[in-house]
Amino acid sequence: MTRLSELGESHVLSRILGHNRDGAHVIVGPGDDAAVTALSGNLVSTADMLVENEDFTRDWLDWHRLGIKAAAQNLADVCAMGAVPHGLLVSLAVPDDTDIADLEALFTGILAEASRAGSELGCEVPIVGGDLSSSGLIVVAITALGTVGPGAALTRSGARPGDAIHLAGTVGRAAAGLDLLFARDELRERALSEITAPDPASTVRSRLTDTGEPELARLIAAQLAAQPDYAAVPRMAGRASAMIDVSDGLSTDLRRIADASGVHAALESAALDELVDDLMPAVRFLFGDGTDAEDRAAPGSAAARREFALEWVLNGGEDHGFVATAAPDLPPPVGWRRIGEVTAGSGLSLDGDDLPTSGFSHFGK
Amino acid sequence: MTRLSELGESHVLSRILGHNRDGAHVIVGPGDDAAVTALSGNLVSTADMLVENEDFTRDWLDWHRLGIKAAAQNLADVCAMGAVPHGLLVSLAVPDDTDIADLEALFTGILAEASRAGSELGCEVPIVGGDLSSSGLIVVAITALGTVGPGAALTRSGARPGDAIHLAGTVGRAAAGLDLLFARDELRERALSEITAPDPASTVRSRLTDTGEPELARLIAAQLAAQPDYAAVPRMAGRASAMIDVSDGLSTDLRRIADASGVHAALESAALDELVDDLMPAVRFLFGDGTDAEDRAAPGSAAARREFALEWVLNGGEDHGFVATAAPDLPPPVGWRRIGEVTAGSGLSLDGDDLPTSGFSHFGK
Repeated sequence: MTRLSELGESHVLSRILGHNRDGAHVIVGPGDDAAVTALSGNLVSTADMLVENEDFTRDWLDWHRLGIKAAAQNLADVCAMGAVPHGLLVSLAVPDDTDIADLEALFTGILAEASRAGSELGCEVPIVGGDLSSSGLIVVAITALGTVGPGAALTRSGARPGDAIHLAGTVGRAAAGLDLLFARDELRERALSEITAPDPASTVRSRLTDTGEPELARLIAAQLAAQPDYAAVPRMAGRASAMIDVSDGLSTDLRRIADASGVHAALESAALDELVDDLMPAVRFLFGDGTDAEDRAAPGSAAARREFALEWVLNGGEDHGFVATAAPDLPPPVGWRRIGEVTAGSGLSLDGDDLPTSGFSHFGK
Repeated sequence: MTRLSELGESHVLSRILGHNRDGAHVIVGPGDDAAVTALSGNLVSTADMLVENEDFTRDWLDWHRLGIKAAAQNLADVCAMGAVPHGLLVSLAVPDDTDIADLEALFTGILAEASRAGSELGCEVPIVGGDLSSSGLIVVAITALGTVGPGAALTRSGARPGDAIHLAGTVGRAAAGLDLLFARDELRERALSEITAPDPASTVRSRLTDTGEPELARLIAAQLAAQPDYAAVPRMAGRASAMIDVSDGLSTDLRRIADASGVHAALESAALDELVDDLMPAVRFLFGDGTDAEDRAAPGSAAARREFALEWVLNGGEDHGFVATAAPDLPPPVGWRRIGEVTAGSGLSLDGDDLPTSGFSHFGK
């Protein structure tokens, strides 16, 4: 193992950036005071950071997937503007004793996700710059750059009454995955406190890995590092009146479109049924099938159990689905599903009932 | 006092960004998934982060100057490419219990420095995006964007034998200021351990504030938040063959030009005399005038005392001076001084003697 402190910053950077491939648009790449890149159209820029123990924990997330997660949340924001990614700047703070191999795994994760976005969207997405600092906590701060044609940017403010509301990708999976991960930790602690063999929790625990039972694994994987459906965006871009990356929850992010556009967003629960179905394995895992006396404070009725999953769908963040509004005259493109409609008014409703504000904020409220 | 945790992230951001003024080139400002800006020429981008207890300490640095420091180090990198700043993205991680007034002071510091750069360079430098996260440690991660005409970017690799080496701004002040700050802390501790009145250290200590004795104050100010001479850059840009922002120390950064250009950089100590003179008040403060028995392990001779200051000049970082190489046929423009010449070969020398590698690295070596 080679620790960061044993090599210099510049040696580490050149080793790490050896994995990077400059795009054809890169005139001056990493290694000078700043990068220089050739751009056509307008510049799109966004920044998001991940902080250890706030946004992720090393107990759950390996370095490679931390890289995927950090890149994805930034690239999704660029794409949600109807833009094409152009490059990334990566500022990292990590402990002195970090293994260089871990740092390389983080960078290859970032580059793998950038490359996936690039191949889905027909562009090159190199790392063009960044910084490496020492810190007690891991912080990954990424800026994603993109380009969009003049007048082609998709903001949150263009939704009009009569538009249909469409979703690409999923919502709720990452939130269900988070509850599964908490449950796994609880099971592990329970197993450690019961010195009995064979460990009754171990079978259950082994189902809860990202390579374990597929229905649960994909939910956990969505929490650890969701991979947005970038390719869906250009199929909708020409038609959309507004678009947003769903990072804080469907209700929160759709409300942002409603607020910015001065309209009401009416969700239809029937259109969310498949998304709820998708999460029922997590409900069954967490609460059993309702017949076992061991089942934990389980929602009683089948309806209450679906309600539990619907909460994830409405308020869970981090899946990085995309929501778009568009004139209702055409069916949604491949990869998109209709989930409601825009009407005159304000705020958000589900089947006509007002939905309260929820979703994620770093500082509560 | 209103703490961050009492308001939501979005309320805090809108309050803070109330201080921000969009530039005329901003099509979509902060508040959407990403910013959209109109750009002419090529895009310049760079990212640098400041981490609490690594790059600064709250004991020394107030929030406003933390903002200035964070903005300046990024803006200097953009300018060192011969570019004009275009905008900033600011990702912040701060503790939950941070006072909103402190956060506002940080942002007004960033905006004040961006505005200073803008007025020196005739451009608008708005904050176009960013992120706000919770963290035990303060982390300020900034990306600075800029624009440069096609073919006009100044890299590190264009220096040619025969070029003169020029410096704008200062080097060594921030390093001397750092040693003064450490000395102040030592004096404070000594004063606390000697329960005598009147406190003999208090007089000395009062000289060591950023509003105290001017000769020392400006050194401390350079450490806390150096303010680069942005305006000097365009006066040199048309002539320069290479340019760099001196952030890690004159020897380290000039060596980067030598390495990238495949040349030798020959510094002349006589040309550095004024820079050394500038730091002698700090030597006198730290070591006395050499006549007092109380004087600490002081360099003995006058020559040794100047040598001590020369170390700061050669190896001290964070002043954010600019070094440029240019054909020697013209005297340096206003704000620039000649400090040496480029010759064939490699590495760095002072008056013909090879200089070893030094300067700052986050991870040693």
